[in-house]
Amino acid sequence: MERSTNYIHRSVRVYGSTKIGKNCTIMENVILGYPQHEVLQNITATGEGIEDSDFPGCRIGDDSFIRAGTTIFSDVRTGNRFKTGHNAMIREKTILGDNVLVGTNVIIDGNVNIGNNVSIQGNAYVPTHVTIEDNVFIGPCAVLSNDRYPVRGEYIPEGPILKKGASIGANATLVPGVEIGEGSVVAAGALVTKDVPAWKLAIGCPAKVKDLPDVMQSINKI
Amino acid sequence: MERSTNYIHRSVRVYGSTKIGKNCTIMENVILGYPQHEVLQNITATGEGIEDSDFPGCRIGDDSFIRAGTTIFSDVRTGNRFKTGHNAMIREKTILGDNVLVGTNVIIDGNVNIGNNVSIQGNAYVPTHVTIEDNVFIGPCAVLSNDRYPVRGEYIPEGPILKKGASIGANATLVPGVEIGEGSVVAAGALVTKDVPAWKLAIGCPAKVKDLPDVMQSINKI
Amino acid sequence: MERSTNYIHRSVRVYGSTKIGKNCTIMENVILGYPQHEVLQNITATGEGIEDSDFPGCRIGDDSFIRAGTTIFSDVRTGNRFKTGHNAMIREKTILGDNVLVGTNVIIDGNVNIGNNVSIQGNAYVPTHVTIEDNVFIGPCAVLSNDRYPVRGEYIPEGPILKKGASIGANATLVPGVEIGEGSVVAAGALVTKDVPAWKLAIGCPAKVKDLPDVMQSINKI
Repeated sequence: MERSTNYIHRSVRVYGSTKIGKNCTIMENVILGYPQHEVLQNITATGEGIEDSDFPGCRIGDDSFIRAGTTIFSDVRTGNRFKTGHNAMIREKTILGDNVLVGTNVIIDGNVNIGNNVSIQGNAYVPTHVTIEDNVFIGPCAVLSNDRYPVRGEYIPEGPILKKGASIGANATLVPGVEIGEGSVVAAGALVTKDVPAWKLAIGCPAKVKDLPDVMQSINKI
Repeated sequence: MERSTNYIHRSVRVYGSTKIGKNCTIMENVILGYPQHEVLQNITATGEGIEDSDFPGCRIGDDSFIRAGTTIFSDVRTGNRFKTGHNAMIREKTILGDNVLVGTNVIIDGNVNIGNNVSIQGNAYVPTHVTIEDNVFIGPCAVLSNDRYPVRGEYIPEGPILKKGASIGANATLVPGVEIGEGSVVAAGALVTKDVPAWKLAIGCPAKVKDLPDVMQSINKI
Repeated sequence: MERSTNYIHRSVRVYGSTKIGKNCTIMENVILGYPQHEVLQNITATGEGIEDSDFPGCRIGDDSFIRAGTTIFSDVRTGNRFKTGHNAMIREKTILGDNVLVGTNVIIDGNVNIGNNVSIQGNAYVPTHVTIEDNVFIGPCAVLSNDRYPVRGEYIPEGPILKKGASIGANATLVPGVEIGEGSVVAAGALVTKDVPAWKLAIGCPAKVKDLPDVMQSINKI
C-alpha cells in the first residue's frame, strides 16, 4: 500500500531533536526522544518543561510502526521497518538494525547494540551493555542479567552476548557475561550459567549443553 | 449499591464498533477495540485516524471494571463482571467467560479461550492459542509458551491447555503444548516439560509429578 | 542544583488528599493517590469522577523523581529521594523509607514495608505482606510470592522477609514466607524454597545454601 505521509497520533510526545523517517505510524501516548535521567533532572530543575528544551532526540527509521504507550529515549537510533508492541521501553545509547521487533512491555535498559532481523518478545528484559547480533530471537519473559555482584557497590556491567541466529526461550535466565553461540538455542525456562558453543542446545537449571536437534538446525536459516 | 449508568473516564479511547455492557467502570487511558495489526496498518496508511474508521470493536460484559492503561483489542468478547488490573493487554480473537480477572501488566497475545471464574495475576504471560478452562488460577509472572522451535522460521503455535481448576504458581514456565490436568497445581518456579495428570502437583525444574497434598485438594472447590 | 519549586507535568493526575514534598519532579501521565479498589468502585458507582471525590491520597517525600506512567495508590507514603522508572505500580498501605528506587514496570501489590536505600529493578514483582529491610537489592524480574495454596480458596498471604542488605538475583523466585537473611545473596534464576541464613549464597533450582564468596561479602557495606 502506497503512502506519502507519516501517521502520528495527536497524543504522541516528541522531545529534543528527534527525527522520524518516512511512512511511519506512531500510536497513542508514545514518547519519543525522552531525555536520559541526568539530562531530565537538569531540565526539570529549572522549572521549564522538557517540551521547550533543546537536547539530542532519537532517530526512527523508515516504515516503522510504534504501538501505543512505547517510550524511546534520546540517543537511540532504530533501523528501518522497526516495530514495537505496546508500552515498550528503550533507553539511551541503544542502536538497532533493520527489521527489529521490540514487544509489549519489553525493557531495553540502554547501551545495547542490536543487529538486523531481531525479534524480542513480550515482557523480555535486556539490561545495559548487551550485544545482540543479527537474526536473534528472544522469547517472551526471557531475562538477561549483567551485574555479577548486585549488592549495591560498584557497578561493573557484563552483559551477555547473543551471537548470530541465537534463540532464547521463554522465561530463560542468562547470568552476566555469558555468550550464546551462533545458531544456538536456549530452551524455555533454562538457567544459563556458562557460555554455550555454536549450534548447541542449552536446557535445564542449570543448563546443560546438548546437541541441537536436527529439526532446530534445519529451520534456522541464518 | 445501585447504579444506572456506566462510568467512563474522559481519557478512555473507544474504537470501532465496541459495545460496553451495563454498570461498567472504565478508567484512565484505557483503549477499547484497538484494531489488530494488519487492520491498523491499513487504516493509518490512509492517513486517517482510527477514531474515524469503521471496523469491529470489542464487547465488554455487564458490571465490568477496567483499570487504568488497559488495552483491549478488536474481536475480544468478555463476560460479565470482568475485571482488570492496570496496563493489561488483551489481543484479538480472545473470548473470556464471566468473573475473569486479568491482572496488571498481563499480556494475553490473542486467539485465547478463557472460561469462567479465572484469575490471571500480575505480569503473567499468555501466548496465542491457549485454552484456559473454568476456575483456573494463573499466578504472578507465570509464563506459558507456544512455540517449540522459536528460530524465526514457520510459526506453528501449540499453546498449553489448562484444565478446570488448575493452578499455576508464580514465575512457573510451561513449555509449548503441555496439558495441566483438572485440579492440578504447578508449584512456584516450576518448569513444566510434560503433561500433568489430573489432581497432581508438579514441582521443580524440570517439574516432577507428585501426589497433591490433601490440603490443596480439599481447598479447591471446583 | 538549587530549585525552589516542583516540576509537575501537566498530564499528571493527582487524586484525594495527596501531598507532594519539595523539589519533586513528576512526569507524563503519572497518577498519584489512586483510590484502592473498593473505594474506587464506590466512587464511580455514584457516577461522579474521582477528581471530585474526597479520600486519602498518598504522600511523596522531598527531592523525589517519578517517571512517566507510574501509578501510586492512596495510603502510600514514600520517604525522601524516592525514584521510580516508567509505569511502576505501588498499591495501597505501602510505606517506603528514604532513597528507594522502584524500577520500570515493577508491581508492589500493597501492604508492603520497605526500608531505606532499597533498589527494586525493572519488572520485579512484590506481592502483598512483604517486609523489605534497609539496603536490600531486588534484581530485574525477581518474583516474590505470598500465597501457598493459590487455588482460589481462602487468601492467607505469607510474604517473604528480606533482611538488611539481602540481594535477590534476576528472575529468582521466592516461595511464600521464606526469610532471606542479612547480607545474603540469592543467585540469578534461583528458586528459593527454604529460609536462607545470614551471609550465605542461595543458588540453583531448588536453591542450595552455600558460603558467600569473599568478594560478595566484602562489597556489601551495610
